[in-house]
Amino acid sequence: MPSMPIPITGSLYGIGVGPGDPELITLKALKRLQSSPVVAFPKGIQGKPGIAESIITPWLTDQQIRLPLTFPYVVDEQILSAAWQQAAEMVWAYLQTGDVVFACEGDVSFYGTFTYLAKSLQQQHSGVKIEVIAGVSSPMAAAAALGIPLTCQDQRLAILPALYSFNGIPASSTPASSIPASSTNELEAALGWADVIVLMKVSRVYRQVWKILAHYQLLDYSYVVANATQPHQVIYSNLQAHPDLKLPYFSLLIVGTKANDSSLNLKHHST
Amino acid sequence: MPSMPIPITGSLYGIGVGPGDPELITLKALKRLQSSPVVAFPKGIQGKPGIAESIITPWLTDQQIRLPLTFPYVVDEQILSAAWQQAAEMVWAYLQTGDVVFACEGDVSFYGTFTYLAKSLQQQHSGVKIEVIAGVSSPMAAAAALGIPLTCQDQRLAILPALYSFNGIPASSTPASSIPASSTNELEAALGWADVIVLMKVSRVYRQVWKILAHYQLLDYSYVVANATQPHQVIYSNLQAHPDLKLPYFSLLIVGTKANDSSLNLKHHST
Repeated sequence: MPSMPIPITGSLYGIGVGPGDPELITLKALKRLQSSPVVAFPKGIQGKPGIAESIITPWLTDQQIRLPLTFPYVVDEQILSAAWQQAAEMVWAYLQTGDVVFACEGDVSFYGTFTYLAKSLQQQHSGVKIEVIAGVSSPMAAAAALGIPLTCQDQRLAILPALYSFNGIPASSTPASSIPASSTNELEAALGWADVIVLMKVSRVYRQVWKILAHYQLLDYSYVVANATQPHQVIYSNLQAHPDLKLPYFSLLIVGTKANDSSLNLKHHST
Repeated sequence: MPSMPIPITGSLYGIGVGPGDPELITLKALKRLQSSPVVAFPKGIQGKPGIAESIITPWLTDQQIRLPLTFPYVVDEQILSAAWQQAAEMVWAYLQTGDVVFACEGDVSFYGTFTYLAKSLQQQHSGVKIEVIAGVSSPMAAAAALGIPLTCQDQRLAILPALYSFNGIPASSTPASSIPASSTNELEAALGWADVIVLMKVSRVYRQVWKILAHYQLLDYSYVVANATQPHQVIYSNLQAHPDLKLPYFSLLIVGTKANDSSLNLKHHST
């Protein structure tokens, strides 16, 4: 009796395509992108292309299948889980025909959407082959744009996913004004421990963060970078003058310390 | 009377060339590397090429001037400062003739040697033009190699420069066995605050770190990656079996948590 044929499926590659500047993609990611018959990416919102999509579009040929996947910007775990499962099913169907690349903005492993897609896919099909190619992440890109070192010597770095991290309160589903004062404890805990702090996606909590930085006299050593390395990148380096800022979703805040700033802040001309 | 001629000098570009895999250089860094008449990099030790040098060498032409710069592996600030000043003088001489690129392994802003070179150069010549191009850093590359997410959702990330961070004791000048038990307080403080911890350059303090991780029952959620993405990359994912390890200089340790591991650790096949 002939043995069962072993199904041949392609691999799923999660590739980090960098923070926004299309030239900040790595050669490795580009090679994988261009050799894959199917290219998936997070679908943009409000009819606009997403960041990863914008970065990769110039590199694709008409022969490559584009697979936009919907990941809703919500915190409801059931809605998210359903979206990831649906995306995983779509990817699985294409894996029967060959390799699939999923393009993430920034790095894949650093607060990346790919993690959830890969996890859902593995739950459905345990033998699926998945590989990851690292990319340039936004804190490093923001430091380069500012012309400052992110970390030097023996400095301890803390990175907080600000949008969700304020005592577990899902900021995206809460009006900024109603986030209680105690929700900023996370930042104060980090200030007690770290020499440099990065607050990811700071827009919704910026006003509260500003008050804490003012209290600790850290405004002079703090910087906001919105849409790092993208054409509409904006830098705020004089936060004393900005107790309130309307910031886009991809905004991060770097808090240095006096020691950091006076000894090693380059403040040089930046790209 | 004619005005004084304005001296025309080139720019210094600090470029991150990634953690080791030559294809993890970005297009932007490669373009800058190939268009620069002078290419500087940290000189290797013991007659071997350094990581950045190994990554860039295949991309250089015979027409480009190679400028190895010596940065001693010591903690004596006077010796370091003298080395940086000497390197800055060498770079300044070449800037009179055109652009100079300085290639760093990993990312430029993340514990990078470039910071000190740039600072020394600015102290000597305040008008010098300096630009930075971000690169892929080793924690993200290590996570990709392990096939795990570094951070997800609302996880707080702490990064410790382990070699120097144990209460200010310069581990590189101290036999590992003589580092006092209290010097590991930094790690315990981070464990109290963060969900995921990265210990950079962990080799000299590995044994002490292992004991702490064992005490907190975190060995099953911890991973060591030595020489991430380089040909001689080594991964240790079962640390229970490794209370002692002889690790190379570029070794890092990622500490996850039980929650992290059970909910989102992909443990998938890695590149």
